[in-house]
Amino acid sequence: MTNARIGIADTTFARVDMAQTVTETIEAYANDSDVEVTIEHTTVPGFKDLPVAAKKLIEEQGCEIVLALGQAGPEPIDKQCAHEASLGLQHAQLATNTHILETFIHTDETPPGADGELRWLAENRAREHALNALWMLFEPDRMNQLAGTGQREGYHDEGPIEQPPQPPKEEPA
Amino acid sequence: MTNARIGIADTTFARVDMAQTVTETIEAYANDSDVEVTIEHTTVPGFKDLPVAAKKLIEEQGCEIVLALGQAGPEPIDKQCAHEASLGLQHAQLATNTHILETFIHTDETPPGADGELRWLAENRAREHALNALWMLFEPDRMNQLAGTGQREGYHDEGPIEQPPQPPKEEPA
Amino acid sequence: MTNARIGIADTTFARVDMAQTVTETIEAYANDSDVEVTIEHTTVPGFKDLPVAAKKLIEEQGCEIVLALGQAGPEPIDKQCAHEASLGLQHAQLATNTHILETFIHTDETPPGADGELRWLAENRAREHALNALWMLFEPDRMNQLAGTGQREGYHDEGPIEQPPQPPKEEPA
Amino acid sequence: MTNARIGIADTTFARVDMAQTVTETIEAYANDSDVEVTIEHTTVPGFKDLPVAAKKLIEEQGCEIVLALGQAGPEPIDKQCAHEASLGLQHAQLATNTHILETFIHTDETPPGADGELRWLAENRAREHALNALWMLFEPDRMNQLAGTGQREGYHDEGPIEQPPQPPKEEPA
Amino acid sequence: MTNARIGIADTTFARVDMAQTVTETIEAYANDSDVEVTIEHTTVPGFKDLPVAAKKLIEEQGCEIVLALGQAGPEPIDKQCAHEASLGLQHAQLATNTHILETFIHTDETPPGADGELRWLAENRAREHALNALWMLFEPDRMNQLAGTGQREGYHDEGPIEQPPQPPKEEPA
Repeated sequence: MTNARIGIADTTFARVDMAQTVTETIEAYANDSDVEVTIEHTTVPGFKDLPVAAKKLIEEQGCEIVLALGQAGPEPIDKQCAHEASLGLQHAQLATNTHILETFIHTDETPPGADGELRWLAENRAREHALNALWMLFEPDRMNQLAGTGQREGYHDEGPIEQPPQPPKEEPA
Repeated sequence: MTNARIGIADTTFARVDMAQTVTETIEAYANDSDVEVTIEHTTVPGFKDLPVAAKKLIEEQGCEIVLALGQAGPEPIDKQCAHEASLGLQHAQLATNTHILETFIHTDETPPGADGELRWLAENRAREHALNALWMLFEPDRMNQLAGTGQREGYHDEGPIEQPPQPPKEEPA
Repeated sequence: MTNARIGIADTTFARVDMAQTVTETIEAYANDSDVEVTIEHTTVPGFKDLPVAAKKLIEEQGCEIVLALGQAGPEPIDKQCAHEASLGLQHAQLATNTHILETFIHTDETPPGADGELRWLAENRAREHALNALWMLFEPDRMNQLAGTGQREGYHDEGPIEQPPQPPKEEPA
Repeated sequence: MTNARIGIADTTFARVDMAQTVTETIEAYANDSDVEVTIEHTTVPGFKDLPVAAKKLIEEQGCEIVLALGQAGPEPIDKQCAHEASLGLQHAQLATNTHILETFIHTDETPPGADGELRWLAENRAREHALNALWMLFEPDRMNQLAGTGQREGYHDEGPIEQPPQPPKEEPA
Repeated sequence: MTNARIGIADTTFARVDMAQTVTETIEAYANDSDVEVTIEHTTVPGFKDLPVAAKKLIEEQGCEIVLALGQAGPEPIDKQCAHEASLGLQHAQLATNTHILETFIHTDETPPGADGELRWLAENRAREHALNALWMLFEPDRMNQLAGTGQREGYHDEGPIEQPPQPPKEEPA
């Protein structure tokens, strides 16, 4: 594959413009390789509006992959909403046989009030998931080589387990 | 797009007539611009009846977007019902490739007995989501410009994070 | 609409014959108005069997609306089962574009051992949801007029909020 | 209906061979009446594999009803898996308009270590759900007569509420 | 059946290369019997990306069964994500009438820091589920014979309950 249409669906609710980071990442990648990428961008109120927005990007705009960018608040109700959005994204992917990379930050991943760190995390995660999307489209072998290596999006990678397999001293009852 | 059909699905359970606020907001918008909007309104018992009502507004009445207006009680069982209604709304949207804006108030968002405040919140949220619907239909660029700016429906907006990105002093283990 | 086919799906698990109450309510309504109603009745073991039973009443028996009558036990596992049944009912409705009114009682809505009160609640709720079904079919305007008026099925109505909207003294952070 | 094809889907995970009990129950019923029953049996690793197995029994083997036999472990993760399996069974039923009777035992329904009682419960529940399946196929009137009578599968029936309806002394606020 | 196409979907998130174990197990089985197996392998970022990946392996690559290999972190949000992935796998299976064996390890199944044991568990579980897949394809009778025998994937089997059925001394209220 040498060209592709990538969708970005984001929200007015989020406090960080992750779409900008995704766009820059895609453009830098396209400049460094001989692929051509068209970006389609749609904005909705909150992350529960993302699944149908992503599905429309796929079915009505012809996107071959979509990044769904959202921010979840810290309250239990926010967790529930994120869960509903995630399930919607599952269904949207299965209905279209197309990947939608859920790129969510949770407000409580960083300490209360640490807005700068939350922004750092959001931009980092957006960048790393944009690369995932590009590799899935253009370099699937690169993804295969990373299988089981403990990659993380946002914070540092955990890396693969290097120790040899070790049976438990005593198996659980 | 210069004309559209907007659906309103609401409940007899809710204690605030949010449909009236939505209708007034739509009519004021239509008066101030050169668009024409037709409203279809259907009422069901509770919010678990909203998903199919919204889907019928889309598929049988030709609505291009729907506002689903509901009020959740304060008990755990009410949270569960809201969750079920939300998942139903996800499926209704994905089955129709049409946005349904979930416009729910939760009784415990305001202090017990503060009925006037609950009504204020309900009407505010209804008004702001009606504007979201109108912008999504008629001014999608306006939505794009608001991406990542911390908009809220009901209470005051949080706004975008202004601080520069700040990596964590120590990353989580 | 002057005639309709209404489905009743109920369970052998429930300890109250809510179908009888529904049937009497429908027959009384039909006698008092010039509509004709045919009732289709199917019985399944428990409420997780209701969604497909309701869908069959719609698709195989031609019902235009269905009442799904069930009783949930008091244990956490019972809550989970009710949740699964509710989600099934959401899907059955969306697959058929037909309303299925979930008419469930939860055993812990009344004090332990207060069987008479549980029966009173079950019959009351069944009666009020039967009326909802009839109004949705034959008097949709009546439903519209009740929008936002705090109706409840079973116990007394809460009624609409009469106070004027009141902004919060201090908005939540 | 005088003949039918009944499916049994079970697991290698369960510690009781409930399929044997179901088979014996079906054969005894067929001997005592003038109906003919063919049994299709498929075995999968765990209960999360049951929904698609049941759907294949219906769509590929022509079963008119299926018993899905499974055992859930006692840990929270086991509860979550049971929930996922149950939701899968909901979807399988709705996709096929065919009943799949969920016949699950939960390891913590009996005291820890009381394996004999767990087996008694599993076999009892399997027997009673096999009868439910047979009655649903061949004696639907019998099911209707049992509506609202408090039947239970496994332990003793609770029976219907005999007291007259009793309004609450004071309705909940 | 004497030949088949088996899909492997795994993640860059996991810290163990379970795909290698699955591949070795399949190749050893094929060598020891007269069946021919082709393996299709796709790698995605995290386990929420597995359902659509598995569905594509089935529908676009012609796989007759898929192993979905993933690792869940120890936090509540990780549990929620695993739940969403599992539900997605349910839908993918039902949409394709094809088994997808969920082969997940949960980081908290082993003590914190016991990486060698986690790897042992991951490889063991992968091996046992690979055998399940092979038996389901090529030796379904072997699965039937193991029904209700308490098989486990990863740790030791629990085995069937050998005690005779024992009714409870006193049934629960």
